[in-house]
Amino acid sequence: MHHEEVRLAVDQRELAGTLALPKTASPGILFIHGWTGSQEDDLARAQEIAALGCVCLTFDLRGHAGTIALRGETTPEQNLKDVLAAYDFLATRPFVDSSAIAVVGASYGAYLGAILTSQRPAKWLSLRVPALYRDRHWRFPKGALDRLDLTLYRQQANGPADNKALAACAAFTGNVLVVESEKDDLVPHQTIASYTAAFSKARSLTYRVIDRADHALSDEASRRAYTRLLVGWIKEMVFGART
Amino acid sequence: MHHEEVRLAVDQRELAGTLALPKTASPGILFIHGWTGSQEDDLARAQEIAALGCVCLTFDLRGHAGTIALRGETTPEQNLKDVLAAYDFLATRPFVDSSAIAVVGASYGAYLGAILTSQRPAKWLSLRVPALYRDRHWRFPKGALDRLDLTLYRQQANGPADNKALAACAAFTGNVLVVESEKDDLVPHQTIASYTAAFSKARSLTYRVIDRADHALSDEASRRAYTRLLVGWIKEMVFGART
Repeated sequence: MHHEEVRLAVDQRELAGTLALPKTASPGILFIHGWTGSQEDDLARAQEIAALGCVCLTFDLRGHAGTIALRGETTPEQNLKDVLAAYDFLATRPFVDSSAIAVVGASYGAYLGAILTSQRPAKWLSLRVPALYRDRHWRFPKGALDRLDLTLYRQQANGPADNKALAACAAFTGNVLVVESEKDDLVPHQTIASYTAAFSKARSLTYRVIDRADHALSDEASRRAYTRLLVGWIKEMVFGART
Repeated sequence: MHHEEVRLAVDQRELAGTLALPKTASPGILFIHGWTGSQEDDLARAQEIAALGCVCLTFDLRGHAGTIALRGETTPEQNLKDVLAAYDFLATRPFVDSSAIAVVGASYGAYLGAILTSQRPAKWLSLRVPALYRDRHWRFPKGALDRLDLTLYRQQANGPADNKALAACAAFTGNVLVVESEKDDLVPHQTIASYTAAFSKARSLTYRVIDRADHALSDEASRRAYTRLLVGWIKEMVFGART
């Protein structure tokens, strides 16, 4: 049982109230979209997962959608702050079980989601086509990074000692889903392999490849395949019912 | 499944988010305290009922607790506005099933609660020692009413045609609990009888007397007896499980 003080507005005044809530709270799922994406990418998926009994939060990272004007200057450090604010909002909803949070990121959002788990508790972590960036670019405008340099970095075998996202994965003790796109033009298989290899303490690891999918899941069939994968994993993991 | 747009504050900015929630919402219970009371009267009771799986709202009516300075001028009409604001706050919480609201009032709060049901849907209505006031005093400062006149009015058999609270009871089609105090010094048995007689369309009516209790339930044993009655009724009615 949880209770919180509230203010009731009436006739230009405020009256004091107290809301007492049952303890039966739902798992919370935080979605983090990729660079140049938006919360739109996950809205339908979030609604489908909410219908299972989870509270889902999607949101637009700084430099995207309503704040696209900031894109040129936005850094990974700033976007992690956005992710932390979104996590804290979700975890403090009185109808959310703050001990049962899942983080679901794609690409740049997966990179941020992995790092989030080093600062906030999560029981489940889903990384779709997780991107990887050099630690020294943490306060560098994300949009101005050298593409060729990034490609070379991602083709190396990187480990927890070299990279803060991989270090977060190495420390993560919850359940993990890693999803690769077979025809990914931005995140090579080596990067996915660096991520999966990093999860040495995970309670479970589920690694899947979506056939014929590109990085952005631009065709409807790939998007549906990803939703099926994610929903199945959440049913198995969060509700403990194998489907 | 329900969803709502939210704003996330970060670095003096706001980011757009969307919260998608499962449909599994809890019944809502609105408590309305009596004249000279406060939400304190029902806090422990509300927490006990929240633990059963309900969302409970208690609040301080205008002219009480933090706004006691307004007591001399406060009218029943104004306090009904407070009750409507509290009802609307409760019924619009995303984790509350707005089709499953119970109204639980005591004395003046029971009078207001009965009238509330003529303006907002309620499935359950609990009236403990419901007070009764003349319709013509609706916009009159409540604290300035003539006590002798009130006593005479309450000793009459009144009906739905004479009184807006009794008219609301006559139109009410939900489930009703009426609780009388055996040693009530303010609300005579005749008033309780006027209320119970008015509920001609109720789906169920439960009428109980608390032995040896006074109007305000000033002894602990009477308060416990009321809590037991109310909790039992809510278990039976809201959760459909006889105890």
